[in-house]
Amino acid sequence: MVFRQLLDPETSTWTYLVGDERTRDAALIDGVREQVERDLELAAQLDLKLRFAIETHIHADHVTSAWIVKERTGARIVGTRASGATGADVVVEDGGTVQVGSLVLEARSTPGHTDSCTTWVLASEGLAFTGDAVLVRGCGRTDFQQGDARRLYRSVHERIFTLPDDTLLYPGHDYRGRTVTTVREERAFNPRLGGGRSEQDFVAIMSALKLDPPKRIDVAVPANLTFGRIAS
Amino acid sequence: MVFRQLLDPETSTWTYLVGDERTRDAALIDGVREQVERDLELAAQLDLKLRFAIETHIHADHVTSAWIVKERTGARIVGTRASGATGADVVVEDGGTVQVGSLVLEARSTPGHTDSCTTWVLASEGLAFTGDAVLVRGCGRTDFQQGDARRLYRSVHERIFTLPDDTLLYPGHDYRGRTVTTVREERAFNPRLGGGRSEQDFVAIMSALKLDPPKRIDVAVPANLTFGRIAS
Repeated sequence: MVFRQLLDPETSTWTYLVGDERTRDAALIDGVREQVERDLELAAQLDLKLRFAIETHIHADHVTSAWIVKERTGARIVGTRASGATGADVVVEDGGTVQVGSLVLEARSTPGHTDSCTTWVLASEGLAFTGDAVLVRGCGRTDFQQGDARRLYRSVHERIFTLPDDTLLYPGHDYRGRTVTTVREERAFNPRLGGGRSEQDFVAIMSALKLDPPKRIDVAVPANLTFGRIAS
Repeated sequence: MVFRQLLDPETSTWTYLVGDERTRDAALIDGVREQVERDLELAAQLDLKLRFAIETHIHADHVTSAWIVKERTGARIVGTRASGATGADVVVEDGGTVQVGSLVLEARSTPGHTDSCTTWVLASEGLAFTGDAVLVRGCGRTDFQQGDARRLYRSVHERIFTLPDDTLLYPGHDYRGRTVTTVREERAFNPRLGGGRSEQDFVAIMSALKLDPPKRIDVAVPANLTFGRIAS
C-alpha cells in the first residue's frame, strides 16, 4: 500500500491518500479544499491515479476538496445515502465497499457526531479511518448537526471497538499533534468512551461540554452537502 | 515496531517515538519541551520504557525535552561529539549505533544545516530520521549555526540519497502538514536538492534565500547545548 497522512494546519484536519502499490489506483479521504493543490501534486508525483474522493462525514469546519478532485482527475465522489448530500457518483450503504485497486475499503455507519458518519475500514492493512467518531483520546462533539451522544456511544462500542485490538485508528482531526491510535488504546484510555465508562457516563460528559459553534459551519455544511461543488 | 509520529503545532516540529514491540524498550527522537507531558503519557500508556532521548541536531527553534525525559524516566541522553553539547550519557560517532531492544539506530553524520546534524537510520524497518538535512521537498537553512550549503549538498547526496529508494524519510519539520517522504521522491522532486540539481545550483538557491532569523534562536541554542537541562 502507498499511504500518506496529511494535515491541514489551519483546521487540524487529517487527510489520507491511500493507493495500491501495484495498480497505482488511489483514493483521497477527507481532502481539504485549501490543500487540493498539495494533494493533487503529491498524488501525481507518487504516480497515483485518483479513482475516488471519499468523505467520513459532512464536515462543519472545512470544505471538502472532493468536487475539485473530481473535476481535475476524474475521480468518483463516494457518498452515503444517509448524508443527504447531492452529487455523489457512487453511493455506498452500511457494509458496502469501495475497491481501490486490490484494496477494499468497507463502509461502517458510525453515526452520533453527525447522522451520516462513516468509518472506513481497510481490514487487509489493519487500519480504519474513523473521521470524528473516535479521535485520539477524544471524539467528535454531539451538540449540533444531528449529533446524538447515545448514538455515538453505541457506534463506537459496537462498530469500532469491536475491530481487532491492534487496528490502527486514523482520526479526522487532532489538535495536539497526534497522528494515530489503536482500538486497544482507546478502549483503555479514551477519557470519554473508554476505561469502562457507561453510556450514561458518556452522555453526561458530552452534555457538560460547553463549546462554541464551529467558526465556519454556516459556510462548510452547505458546501459539503454538494461535496464542495463550485458553482460555474 | 511501535511507532508514533507527533507534531508540535507551534513550531511544526516532528517528534518520533520508536519502540521494540516485544521488549517495550523505546527511544524518543527530537522531543519538544512543551510537549513532554503528552509524550511521557503516551509512552506510559503504550507500556514503553524510554531508554534513550535522541536528537538529530542542536535545534534553533525549540528546546528539547531530553533532559526532562531523562529526569523523569531514567532514559539516557544520546549526543554526538561534533555537537559540542554537554550532558550526554552516551556519545555516538558517525557510524555508531544505539540499540533499542532489537532495533538498531545507526548514526550517519549529515552536516550542513548545522555542523553536527545526524540522520538516524533504522535499516530493518526501511526508514530514517533526517532531522533538518532533508525535509519533504525542502531542506534546513544553511545561513547560520555553522550552516554550509556545500556540506549539506554532499551529506544529502552521499549519505541519504544513497539509501534504498523506498526508504521512508521522516523529517524534523514540515510546515505544510506532510508527514513523510522517500528517497525516490526527494531525488526526483526536491526543488533544491533533487531533479539532477548540481552542488553549484544548490549553493545558488540557498544563497538567494533571505530568511529572518529563527525567533527563538537566542534561547533555544544555548538550552539545547545542555539538552534542555533545567538549572536546579
